[in-house]
Amino acid sequence: MRKSIVIALGGNAIKQADEKGTAEEQRHNVATTCRQLVSMLKYGHRLVITHGNGPQAGNLLIQQEAGVAEVPAQPLDIVGAMTQGQVGYMFQQILQNMLWEERLSLPVVSIVNQVLVSEDDPDYQDPSKPVGPFYTKEEAATLKIERPDYIIKEVKPENVERRFRRVVPSPEPLRNIEYLAIRRMVDAGIVVVASGGGGVPVIFDKDKNLKGTAAVIDKDKAGEVLATVVGADVFMVLTDVDHAKINFGKPDEKNVGCVGYSEMRKLAAEGHFKAGSMGPKVEACLRFIEWGGQKAIITSLDKAIAALMDQSGTRIVPDVGCSV
Amino acid sequence: MRKSIVIALGGNAIKQADEKGTAEEQRHNVATTCRQLVSMLKYGHRLVITHGNGPQAGNLLIQQEAGVAEVPAQPLDIVGAMTQGQVGYMFQQILQNMLWEERLSLPVVSIVNQVLVSEDDPDYQDPSKPVGPFYTKEEAATLKIERPDYIIKEVKPENVERRFRRVVPSPEPLRNIEYLAIRRMVDAGIVVVASGGGGVPVIFDKDKNLKGTAAVIDKDKAGEVLATVVGADVFMVLTDVDHAKINFGKPDEKNVGCVGYSEMRKLAAEGHFKAGSMGPKVEACLRFIEWGGQKAIITSLDKAIAALMDQSGTRIVPDVGCSV
Repeated sequence: MRKSIVIALGGNAIKQADEKGTAEEQRHNVATTCRQLVSMLKYGHRLVITHGNGPQAGNLLIQQEAGVAEVPAQPLDIVGAMTQGQVGYMFQQILQNMLWEERLSLPVVSIVNQVLVSEDDPDYQDPSKPVGPFYTKEEAATLKIERPDYIIKEVKPENVERRFRRVVPSPEPLRNIEYLAIRRMVDAGIVVVASGGGGVPVIFDKDKNLKGTAAVIDKDKAGEVLATVVGADVFMVLTDVDHAKINFGKPDEKNVGCVGYSEMRKLAAEGHFKAGSMGPKVEACLRFIEWGGQKAIITSLDKAIAALMDQSGTRIVPDVGCSV
Repeated sequence: MRKSIVIALGGNAIKQADEKGTAEEQRHNVATTCRQLVSMLKYGHRLVITHGNGPQAGNLLIQQEAGVAEVPAQPLDIVGAMTQGQVGYMFQQILQNMLWEERLSLPVVSIVNQVLVSEDDPDYQDPSKPVGPFYTKEEAATLKIERPDYIIKEVKPENVERRFRRVVPSPEPLRNIEYLAIRRMVDAGIVVVASGGGGVPVIFDKDKNLKGTAAVIDKDKAGEVLATVVGADVFMVLTDVDHAKINFGKPDEKNVGCVGYSEMRKLAAEGHFKAGSMGPKVEACLRFIEWGGQKAIITSLDKAIAALMDQSGTRIVPDVGCSV
């Protein structure tokens, strides 16, 4: 059965942890990812793709600072939009090539995508998401004077020299600003790449105008907002493991297969899924079901097709139960 | 009468020549531009917007080089895609805010957009388009060894120290790769920002796969390809003067108002329009009419509405003649 699927790709879909992030490395990883996406498109599924941008934004922020004597550095929201262009381009080109090879005439487009957050989000009180370069104690002290708007925190142990970093809030995504356009694009048969890096975070200012904010939104949570708003049948979170696990790292560790909403909510409350890692992925999936979604999947790239066929992966469904 | 209009914005729509290119400056200029665009949208016209990226790509290339000791520099095609994200974001956000203020419910989306060129284009034999930083003679010599793929040329007079620059081809645009998606988006009532910076230039490699190429496409010529392919009623080139002029700079200088295709082709052949400036704009407009377009306009931002009403600007029409 043909489904509309929103896929949130893990960081390893673009850059492996041990890589520097050259264009060639990234293209190679994106191609591996796209091969699986093309298989889904061959089944007739409609796809909306979203992705992280951590390493790309990190590199770009380093470059922005390195060039600051000559040209102005751009703020974090604009850097986010730039990485949407960068990553979107790679997916768009490689996916298009593979689709032509398969004689599938599907247009692929990446868009610039803003996601609304609120400055009342508790994370604005105590920002925790590190971005950009590492600084020495001295550099951090200078930066605090030069950029009074920056919050600098010690993020590595005392004995490391470069152990300071800028931190920004990671607020909850409230709304996908371009949702209407995305919905129309999906309806028009376009494969859309959207909400890259969790979306460019924007707030409403006092005049009710959208305005960029220095923050980073969790890409899986933003992916859920996207999935809900386009009315996706399936929300799929791809990561480096093929299942969410209970008792992770213990002798009685066990894969979560098909699971009802309430059961999974209970497992999450019991603390089985690590904050900053599997935790937000599970939370995003649970929200998708809460808002009427029929199936949320957490699995690895190579199990994605099997998971869609209920043969692998963690599949979270409404409480009426698992069909398999 | 409601029309579909493709607008190619001049560089001054985003960055004035005397500015450094801070985010604030650029937002200010984009807002001025968007006010005119909103007026057109209020008349019910459908808009596709395209823009240059020269200053943005220039700054980003400087930053890429400045950070090269720490993180890999991205190639020119990816830098182009990044500026599409950067500029597209500003237009998208500011235009969206103004539309909401006017209670116009039109979605605005910027896309990553590739434009096909050919390596057989004569400009690949003798590239002439300077990109990125200026180098001293010594730096240029080092760069020639480090980057054998770069072509470095002397672009300023002998007595200037930093007078060397990388040059790339500026090939003719052949096809807008995402044309089908753009057409569907326009049909779905979406205001689209596309083909930014003339599009990300791509070629077909030996396996018939799209591949980025280090080149820069003229944004007005790429705009014409876009206008033709979406079947625009009007192709409008906005620049810093309100008319193309004959005998430019001479005592008998005269604005070109409404003009038939053949007459304008003759004026162009007589050399009235300067290469690298008004020349490519006129050529782009002439091509639009050749491919069946009904009206091509060259004017300034503040005369755009008047030009649409045949009250100002250079208006190039098919030979059947001018209605005004």
